[in-house]
Amino acid sequence: MKINVLLSPLNADELYFTGKTVVVVDVLRATTTIITALKNGAKEIIPVESVDFAVKVSGGSSSGQTLLAGERNTKMIEGFVLGNSPLEFSEEAISGKSIIHYTTNGSKAIVKAKFAENLLIGSFNNVSAVTEHLLKLDSDVEILCAGSNGMFCVEDTVCAGWLISMLQEKKGDLILSDAAEASLVLKKHYGKRVLKMLNESEHGRLLIENGFEEDLNVAGKIDSTDVIPVFLQGTITRYDPKKFDDPL
Amino acid sequence: MKINVLLSPLNADELYFTGKTVVVVDVLRATTTIITALKNGAKEIIPVESVDFAVKVSGGSSSGQTLLAGERNTKMIEGFVLGNSPLEFSEEAISGKSIIHYTTNGSKAIVKAKFAENLLIGSFNNVSAVTEHLLKLDSDVEILCAGSNGMFCVEDTVCAGWLISMLQEKKGDLILSDAAEASLVLKKHYGKRVLKMLNESEHGRLLIENGFEEDLNVAGKIDSTDVIPVFLQGTITRYDPKKFDDPL
Repeated sequence: MKINVLLSPLNADELYFTGKTVVVVDVLRATTTIITALKNGAKEIIPVESVDFAVKVSGGSSSGQTLLAGERNTKMIEGFVLGNSPLEFSEEAISGKSIIHYTTNGSKAIVKAKFAENLLIGSFNNVSAVTEHLLKLDSDVEILCAGSNGMFCVEDTVCAGWLISMLQEKKGDLILSDAAEASLVLKKHYGKRVLKMLNESEHGRLLIENGFEEDLNVAGKIDSTDVIPVFLQGTITRYDPKKFDDPL
Repeated sequence: MKINVLLSPLNADELYFTGKTVVVVDVLRATTTIITALKNGAKEIIPVESVDFAVKVSGGSSSGQTLLAGERNTKMIEGFVLGNSPLEFSEEAISGKSIIHYTTNGSKAIVKAKFAENLLIGSFNNVSAVTEHLLKLDSDVEILCAGSNGMFCVEDTVCAGWLISMLQEKKGDLILSDAAEASLVLKKHYGKRVLKMLNESEHGRLLIENGFEEDLNVAGKIDSTDVIPVFLQGTITRYDPKKFDDPL
């Protein structure tokens, strides 16, 4: 099992992901928020690459069953009913709803990897569940860090390191790329001080400045759920073994 | 003094570098080779983005004063007289010559950063000299790792970490981006085991397979020279304070 980490979505083009098993990580906050939304009963999340496309996709819907959510550089978008804080995605707010999701980094990274054979959504919240699923799939893995406007960000890389560390514990014979090795070194460096790392990260500090400190506490919780969001044909839903696994 | 590291040239576009102080690092092997060439008396290095352009630039020259050098995925290029191994750039081979240099990652990274105000070429070989020069310039610094076909590579990042570590020792008040912090963590992780890191890196293993093991020994030598190559108007020459610094 070979593991590679892409430290920015700009490292490769869309076709790179064709047929691969990919985990997209955007700890602050898109993938944390998607996991929270599905945990709280959202029907589906539709990630989009642009605000225009979000509005277009939602255009036909006036039933209140489709919600526009997201942010641009941590700020709420005009006409959207939800931002990108996991705290907004409560059961009351989103249970049974379809959510069209645009964010600066995460949703674009997910759409970029759309040709993957298996596309999972990971964060610190579901790192054990994703690990178990990857072990079942037993294929090479590309972990795609959403980063920050094309640049490296530490929290996604440390989360990639957690996934690799857990895979390594369960299955010793991993072949790691330079980027996977480096992610593991960073994971070991920060150890259990995940929340401290989030608080000191560039993106974490920006969120705190904008009043989202509590989001960091949510994002930093290791294994708070076993929800695995999977992307299939344009839509993210909660992984359901009955629906996704081939019948024997 | 703010320090950022770009872990791949794909992380930003050409205009990002406009007016900035940039150090390009491609330890295996382009920047190591450029430093060696200037140390051994090459007149200048002209980095190019494509083989076609290399041939075009050299077209008018039949005096033997201009040499085509470089590689594509570690392999020699047809019609070129030199590869990209620092061992080939001996005084006998290149003293007084102009060298047109095409490589898979390094020369493209240098050309990408061409709008920088100060563009320095760094490797483990000149890390103290580059540090001293950056302290004199006293501006924010972008360290651009050439990486490997758009992906992260460990050796360039560890070299970036060495530069940051040395800057930090001499000047305590650095502001580090996430990528700069991560480079420093990696530098500390490998410590003095630079040659071991090179031998275990993806690119290092590829070079060893192709018979270039000795190049790793050259590339791993910390501070083997005080040569600082600088890029100005399309050409890399050896930094000469008399030529470059403003007269007072």
